Amino acid sequence: MSSLERRIRDIFGERCSFSLTERVAYSFDATRQRAIPDCVVFPENADEVGELFRVARESRIPVVPRGAGSGFSGGTVPVSGGVVVSFERMDRILDIDEVNLVARVEPGVVLGNLQSAVESMGLFYPPDPSSRDFCTIGGNIAECAGGPSGFKYGVTKDYVLALDNVLPSGEFLRTGVETVKGVVGYNLTSLIVGSEGTLTVVTGATLKLLPKPEHVETLLIGFRSTEEACRGVNEIIRKKVVPRTIELIDSTAVECVREFSPVDIPDGAGAFLLIDVDGFESDVKAQVRRVKEAVTSLPVVSLQVEEDPDGRESLWALRRAISPSLLKVNPTKINEDITVPRARLPEVMRRVRELSEETGIPIVNFGHAGDGNVHVNIMIDGDDPAQVKKAEEVLREIFALTVSVGGTISGEHGVGISKKPYIGMELSPRQIEVMKRLKRLFDPDNILNPHKIFPD
Amino acid sequence: MSSLERRIRDIFGERCSFSLTERVAYSFDATRQRAIPDCVVFPENADEVGELFRVARESRIPVVPRGAGSGFSGGTVPVSGGVVVSFERMDRILDIDEVNLVARVEPGVVLGNLQSAVESMGLFYPPDPSSRDFCTIGGNIAECAGGPSGFKYGVTKDYVLALDNVLPSGEFLRTGVETVKGVVGYNLTSLIVGSEGTLTVVTGATLKLLPKPEHVETLLIGFRSTEEACRGVNEIIRKKVVPRTIELIDSTAVECVREFSPVDIPDGAGAFLLIDVDGFESDVKAQVRRVKEAVTSLPVVSLQVEEDPDGRESLWALRRAISPSLLKVNPTKINEDITVPRARLPEVMRRVRELSEETGIPIVNFGHAGDGNVHVNIMIDGDDPAQVKKAEEVLREIFALTVSVGGTISGEHGVGISKKPYIGMELSPRQIEVMKRLKRLFDPDNILNPHKIFPD
Repeated sequence: MSSLERRIRDIFGERCSFSLTERVAYSFDATRQRAIPDCVVFPENADEVGELFRVARESRIPVVPRGAGSGFSGGTVPVSGGVVVSFERMDRILDIDEVNLVARVEPGVVLGNLQSAVESMGLFYPPDPSSRDFCTIGGNIAECAGGPSGFKYGVTKDYVLALDNVLPSGEFLRTGVETVKGVVGYNLTSLIVGSEGTLTVVTGATLKLLPKPEHVETLLIGFRSTEEACRGVNEIIRKKVVPRTIELIDSTAVECVREFSPVDIPDGAGAFLLIDVDGFESDVKAQVRRVKEAVTSLPVVSLQVEEDPDGRESLWALRRAISPSLLKVNPTKINEDITVPRARLPEVMRRVRELSEETGIPIVNFGHAGDGNVHVNIMIDGDDPAQVKKAEEVLREIFALTVSVGGTISGEHGVGISKKPYIGMELSPRQIEVMKRLKRLFDPDNILNPHKIFPD
Repeated sequence: MSSLERRIRDIFGERCSFSLTERVAYSFDATRQRAIPDCVVFPENADEVGELFRVARESRIPVVPRGAGSGFSGGTVPVSGGVVVSFERMDRILDIDEVNLVARVEPGVVLGNLQSAVESMGLFYPPDPSSRDFCTIGGNIAECAGGPSGFKYGVTKDYVLALDNVLPSGEFLRTGVETVKGVVGYNLTSLIVGSEGTLTVVTGATLKLLPKPEHVETLLIGFRSTEEACRGVNEIIRKKVVPRTIELIDSTAVECVREFSPVDIPDGAGAFLLIDVDGFESDVKAQVRRVKEAVTSLPVVSLQVEEDPDGRESLWALRRAISPSLLKVNPTKINEDITVPRARLPEVMRRVRELSEETGIPIVNFGHAGDGNVHVNIMIDGDDPAQVKKAEEVLREIFALTVSVGGTISGEHGVGISKKPYIGMELSPRQIEVMKRLKRLFDPDNILNPHKIFPD
C-alpha cells in the first residue's frame, strides 16, 4: 500500500476504492470520453473533502468532483488521473422551507428527487435538464444546468442563493446569503455556479424555490418548415406571452421520428413547436389564446392543445422520441448546444441545413427555441476517420456562425474538455487570461479538476 | 497647470473640470458623506476611460466612477481624492430589441428613461429603486439595485446579460453574452454587478427585458399591528401567490404619516401591507382573490383594491408620504436596508421596536417585506454627540440581530464606506480575504475606487 493510499484510507475508511473495476466505473461521463482515476472516494461531509485536499496538495495529485457523470462536456473526466470525489453519499435534502421559499441540500441530491419533494409541498424548482432523473444538484451547479423551462424561469444560476465550498487549500468558504436580496461583498456564489468544478468543491447549497404553477397546458403546433416554426417563436414573443417552454422540433428531427412517431404527424407538417404554458388556470387559458393568435399569421398545419397530464405527455412523447431515434441515422452523435439571439434562429437553422446538404453529413436539430438554444446533433460513423474529420470542419463552421451572430458555443453543457479547443472562437485572449488568473487565485497548485475549460 | 492636469485636458478637452465649484458638486452622494476630488471628467466613450486609466496608473491617482450620486453607501464618494468619472454624457439607449428582449445602453442612462422607453414598446425592465427618476443604470449595476418589485422579479443582477468594461489597466474587457443561456468560461458579469465600481468601470450594458404585464391592481390592507402585518406576508406566500410587490408600512411609519396622510387611516389600523399584483387581467383577478383569502385568517382592519392608475397611485401615496414625514421625527435619518429570511420578520420587527423603546431613539420601519428587506430608519439629531453614539450602538445591535437570523446587513444599498466598519459582522475573515484578493487581481495598483467595501 502506498503512503498516499494509506492517507486516503485514513480519511475515508471503507468509503474509498482503488480497484480497477470501480476506477473504470468513474472514468467517463455522457460524452464517453474516458480517463481512469487513481482512486474514487465517497465523502459524507465537508471535513473529509478538506482533509483530502490537504493530502492532494502535498502529493500534487488532482481532485475531480463528480455528480452523476451525466455531463456532456467531459467536465468530470479525470484527464490527468488523481482522486474522483463522488457525492453519492451526500444526497440528503436537509430542509424545505415553505415560507422562506428555500431548500437546503447536499450536492449529491438527484434533481428529480428534489423536484418531487418540493412539488409535494406545492413548491417548484424550475431547472429541468433532460437528465433530471439521475443528474445531481452538485453537477447542475457546476455546469449551470438549464433545460426547456429556461425561457420563462432561467437556469440554475438564477436559483442558487448560497453555497458551502471547500477551497483547494482545504479551507471552507461559505458564499452568498439565504435571501434573494444581499449585496455585502462580491458575488462569489454566481462566480462559482457554472465554473465546472474548477474553483471550489461545493458541499452544500441553498436554493430558491417558487410556488408551483397550478395549471399547465401543452400546445403542439405543426408548421410547414423549420423556418416558419422559428418565425412562429418570434411571433409568440411579439405577442408578449412568456410560455414555460418553447421547444423546436425541426424538419430533420421530424424525419427521424416520422415512421414510428407516438403522435400523428399530419401531411405537410415539416416542423413543430411544443409549448408549455403555466400559471393559474385562468391565466393559462389567456396565454393559450394569445399563442394561437400569434401563430395565425403563419400557415399553421396543425394545432393541438392538451391539459390533462396524459394528454400533455402524449404530445411531449414526440419530443422524447427524437434522441433514441437518432441512432438509426448514424451510430455517433456529436451533440452541441449552441445558443443564438432568438431573432437570428431562422438564418442559423437555414445555414445549418445548407452545411448538412453541402457535406452530406446528417444534422438533426431540436431544442429550446425560446432561448435560442438549439441542440445540433451531427450524426456520423465515429469509426470512419474521413467522417470524423469532416464533422470537425462542420462543427467549426457552426461555431463560427454562432459567434458571428452574437451567440455562444455552449448554452448549458459547459466547456470541459469537449469545447476547450474552441473557446478561443468565442472568448478573447484577454477574457481567457482574466479567467485563468481567477483559476490560479482559487487553485494556485492547479490540483482541482485541472486541464479543463482553458487551453493549457 | 500641472502635468497631470495637462494630460487629463489632452484626453477630455473641455469635458473636464478642475474648478472647486464643480469638484464640490461631485463630492457627495445621498449619504451626504463628502470628499472633494482633484477633478471631474465627462467621458463620451470607453476609449477615453482607458486613456484616463493609463494616466492614473502612472500618477497613482484614484479613479472613481459616478452615476447620479444617489447611492446610500458613499460608494461614489472619492475618499482619497483623484478623478471622478461622471457618465452623464454617456446616456444613450443604443437599442431596444423586442424579439431578442434586450436593451443595449450606455451607463449614464437614467433608469426611469429606460423604463419609459421600453414600456412604450410593451416591454418591461423591472428593477425599481425609489430613485428611478434620476439614478443611472451604471449606478444600478455597481450597487445591484433592487426595489419593491424584487419579490417577483429579482434585482439588477437578474437582468444584466453582458457588460463592456474598462479594466484598471486601461484595457477593455467584454463579459457575458446577449442570450439568457451561456456557460462558456467563468461568469464575470455577475461578479462585476454589485462590485460597487471597484473591479472595472462599466461603459456599456446589455439588459434583459420582459413583456410588460398588461394589468396591475393594488391592495392596501390595514392590520392592527406590525406583527400581524408580517404574519399576513407569510400567509400570502403560503397561498402560493407571487405579487409584484409586498410593501410593509409598520406602526412607527403609520404614526409618522397619520396626521397628514393622503389616505384615510381607519381607527385601529396600526400597520399596512401595500401589494401590487400584475399579469394578464384574468390572472390578476385570481391573485387578488387569493390574497384576500390569505389574509382572512387574520383580524384585518381594512382592505382596499384599486385597478385604475389614479386609484392605485392614491394608495401608493401613503407609502410615498413616509420618507418626507420622517424629518418631523428628528432631523437626521440613518437609513439602513437589512434583509432577513421573511419568516423571521415578525421577531426582528418586535426586537427593533423594543430597542427603540429601551433607548428612546425613534426607529421608523417600512420596506419590501416580501423580500424580508426592511428599511430601518434610525431618527436622531445628528448634532447631538450622545444621540449619535447611542444610535451607533442601536445600529450594531440591529446588524447583529440580522446576521443571527441568517440575514444580511445590506439588501440593496451596498457597503461603500457607510457599512465598511460592519462587514466583519457578516463576512468571515476568509471571505473578506478571498474578496480582497479578487480586488487585487483586477486592480493591482488599487487606483479604482479605493478604500471601499473592505477594511484596509
